[in-house]
Amino acid sequence: MHDRLNQEIDRLSATADALFDAIAQASREGAGISRPAYCAEETAAGELIRQFAQAEGLACGMDGGGNFQYDLEGQDTRTMTVMASHLDSVPVGGNYDGLAGVVAGTLVQAACKRAGIVPPRRLRTLGFRGEESPWFGTAYLGSKLALGKLTDKELNELTHLRTKQSLASHLRALGVQADEAAIRDKRLRHEAIHAYLELHIEQGPVLEDMGIPIGLATAIRGNIRHPFAQCLGVYGHSSTSPRHLRCDAVIATAQLVCAADRLWKEVLDEGGNDDLIINFGIFSTNPAQHAMTKVPGEVKFSFNIAGTNNDVAQKLYGRILAEAERIQEAFRVRFDFGSKVGTAAIHLDQGLIGVAENAAAGLGMKSLRMPTVGHDAAMFAQLGVPTGMILVRNQHGSHNVDEAMRIEDFINATKVLAHCALN
Amino acid sequence: MHDRLNQEIDRLSATADALFDAIAQASREGAGISRPAYCAEETAAGELIRQFAQAEGLACGMDGGGNFQYDLEGQDTRTMTVMASHLDSVPVGGNYDGLAGVVAGTLVQAACKRAGIVPPRRLRTLGFRGEESPWFGTAYLGSKLALGKLTDKELNELTHLRTKQSLASHLRALGVQADEAAIRDKRLRHEAIHAYLELHIEQGPVLEDMGIPIGLATAIRGNIRHPFAQCLGVYGHSSTSPRHLRCDAVIATAQLVCAADRLWKEVLDEGGNDDLIINFGIFSTNPAQHAMTKVPGEVKFSFNIAGTNNDVAQKLYGRILAEAERIQEAFRVRFDFGSKVGTAAIHLDQGLIGVAENAAAGLGMKSLRMPTVGHDAAMFAQLGVPTGMILVRNQHGSHNVDEAMRIEDFINATKVLAHCALN
Repeated sequence: MHDRLNQEIDRLSATADALFDAIAQASREGAGISRPAYCAEETAAGELIRQFAQAEGLACGMDGGGNFQYDLEGQDTRTMTVMASHLDSVPVGGNYDGLAGVVAGTLVQAACKRAGIVPPRRLRTLGFRGEESPWFGTAYLGSKLALGKLTDKELNELTHLRTKQSLASHLRALGVQADEAAIRDKRLRHEAIHAYLELHIEQGPVLEDMGIPIGLATAIRGNIRHPFAQCLGVYGHSSTSPRHLRCDAVIATAQLVCAADRLWKEVLDEGGNDDLIINFGIFSTNPAQHAMTKVPGEVKFSFNIAGTNNDVAQKLYGRILAEAERIQEAFRVRFDFGSKVGTAAIHLDQGLIGVAENAAAGLGMKSLRMPTVGHDAAMFAQLGVPTGMILVRNQHGSHNVDEAMRIEDFINATKVLAHCALN
Repeated sequence: MHDRLNQEIDRLSATADALFDAIAQASREGAGISRPAYCAEETAAGELIRQFAQAEGLACGMDGGGNFQYDLEGQDTRTMTVMASHLDSVPVGGNYDGLAGVVAGTLVQAACKRAGIVPPRRLRTLGFRGEESPWFGTAYLGSKLALGKLTDKELNELTHLRTKQSLASHLRALGVQADEAAIRDKRLRHEAIHAYLELHIEQGPVLEDMGIPIGLATAIRGNIRHPFAQCLGVYGHSSTSPRHLRCDAVIATAQLVCAADRLWKEVLDEGGNDDLIINFGIFSTNPAQHAMTKVPGEVKFSFNIAGTNNDVAQKLYGRILAEAERIQEAFRVRFDFGSKVGTAAIHLDQGLIGVAENAAAGLGMKSLRMPTVGHDAAMFAQLGVPTGMILVRNQHGSHNVDEAMRIEDFINATKVLAHCALN
């Protein structure tokens, strides 16, 4: 059975390549790719995959939360295996982050169909919307909607950074009944999911550096995030504000960043988990007010901690908050961290890792067990669904215009995905 | 003679108030005042003063560098006393910073004319353009042009932040022959200037806090400035960049800011000069690229040191640059400080301070000797012209929308200015 399936996947290689290209053409911005969540470029990606899937005889539609759904019926009609990832991208990012997993799912289904294989249970590919956090300041919106997990407050208050429209308004434009009860009612019942499988590009340099084509995720990092934090000081003429009197938002926020960096090293040195990250990706004075000769009265910044050990992340977060208290006293400013979002770290299914490892070995490929960053998979794993992630090596990291993926690595990883989905 | 002059200045109080109001109306932006250098709002200010000056019988015109010039002839036609300040403002600033001194000069001239006083030498009021640095990234453009001090390179390469036009192009639009040789040829000969006097609002809270209406500047702070500095790191997915490998421009620039703040305190503690300021007024990741989950690869920032002791400022500057070298090695980034601008600190004329102090005392007013920040006066003082500055107390600092000045304080300071100009 598997040889036949692998042959069909190989034959679909050029089709996959053309599909990636067509979707890239529909979502270029500058030197990169932008598929804003719940916007036309994201929809175009799902539609181009639908055209392919429909031509291959798959049943296509939209789930109750506005996500794309592509189905192949199996022998057991009561349970299903889900293969999924997301269709949106970060602003001016790369083409494969998310998209690769949705294309891979439909390739597995199409190859089954072509090979005449009826899978043991329904195979469902989901193309989630809104996984990336820049658009609404929070991640995994599509998978949360699929599982009926968003509240009316979130639906109405989350606002898109580009369109300035609420998530509810975007959903209504897609024909979704955008209220909590209706979405919960139409949710995907996780009890019926036999396994959740996500193929995704690796987002760092580890596999490429080690010359290994495939990674198998052992855990999804959790994170603690403040997307819209700020520091408030007092504007003034810089040369008339002596050091001991100024309320300088840049100096105070710089103190916070340096303290966080120092505490990061401190927690790493204490041991227990070397998989711990902090990031201040956004740090900006107010362009409408700032000047070389003005004491800066205002800084907006983002703050992100990520790691595979929740207790260690929480320990670092607590120490940084305590330091923020000290700094705002000492530097006469006020930190307002704004809303807190995030997810807990989750360990993935050991059985699925073993199946994938064997499948890779059977194809003559090396694979590496490694932790990974936040993905839609976390939403399923935290409900107890057996969850596996297959990572494809990537030449220049993700979330940037140079992100890359070799099509032969993708095809090999799709074969591993197929093996997991049918076993 | 002085009683009569003081009476005429008092009688002009309502006129001055109306003139300030009319000019404010012509330059509102949001809750504040914007008179961009070499733009329509700045010209409108000079024109409104010209209408007043012309009605009072003064000779009005434009100097060879595009500045407004208002003259009253004196007994000695070979020398002159200059009263001057600037017409432009910072973006969304206050109405009196600069403007007060130009209005005061013409009030002194008008009061002389009304009182039938022929001054010992010509009284010239100059309304400089382009004193504030935000517009072209460098300060004192009007007074430098008046003195024939700009090069062809500067004329053609300095670019206005709002209009994106060169300084030369702005000057040509005003009918100025915008080349170095012509401007030098038409320059104000500093040898013919008996004294340069500038009335200006205080830009800090000292006079208001001490309940003293008038300050007499002992020195003008110098400064060392990098308006367009940047830190270049490498963008990447934050969760896949471990601490020891990332090239994080925010963490590195924050280290520079914290080091500068620490070195600032260190130099202050060493003694020798407690009048020393640093400022990082602008600090921004790139809005087109930054995201919560991206390692920031780029920070733009401004850097300013100011003080009345050049050696002390230079010592601090040297230590900060050495620290920047260390930080760029340790954090795997590159600092590019860009162009360096600035002026040396200058001590003002002791004789003029004495004359002003006596004039204030004669009017029953307390005055305070104090250092001040950079002003056009520095351009004249550094050529050896006897230079004095009269500071008017201000309720909320300058370079912000709440800047304020009481008209009675302004009228009293104008009387002191008149006394200095005629003695």
